[in-house]
Amino acid sequence: MFRHVVLLKWTEDATEEQRAEVARRLSTLPDAIPELRSYQIGHDAGVNQGNFSFGVVADFDSAEDYIVYRDHPVHLAVIKECIAPILADRAAVQYEL
Amino acid sequence: MFRHVVLLKWTEDATEEQRAEVARRLSTLPDAIPELRSYQIGHDAGVNQGNFSFGVVADFDSAEDYIVYRDHPVHLAVIKECIAPILADRAAVQYEL
Repeated sequence: MFRHVVLLKWTEDATEEQRAEVARRLSTLPDAIPELRSYQIGHDAGVNQGNFSFGVVADFDSAEDYIVYRDHPVHLAVIKECIAPILADRAAVQYEL
Repeated sequence: MFRHVVLLKWTEDATEEQRAEVARRLSTLPDAIPELRSYQIGHDAGVNQGNFSFGVVADFDSAEDYIVYRDHPVHLAVIKECIAPILADRAAVQYEL
């Protein structure tokens, strides 16, 4: 398996509606992108200071399948329309499971 | 379930030996901390430019169990002895599964 992890930090002026819309739109991706084997997303629980805002853990059969997801137009549309407007910072890692 | 995700970026002068030692020491934590239900770690695969260096995805039964891990002396020893000396940046999120 091949795992993609991305953590996103929202701008201070991001609204609750905008934050919720990211989760709603991302949650449609498993139906749109069959290469996604597992897709677990969530808003930071607020346990620790200084955290990022949102987490995505996505598993694929291979790095090639991850790239299909990365470059998929439905995914890119969510990034452009929902994530980019409120994105303050981003960190990502992909690793073999 | 309660998930902890952390992404770490190493300093440019971090050696291969130091990077490998982080993975080796972290891989001992599930035996030391029974609250860990799942612990999947890995070095960035190098697919994308600008990524962080290392990923940790840890699952617990509850936020309270995560805090046991967060503050566990065996975990803190790995952070102090292996991670802190080569840490350039860090991003974390915890979320409910």
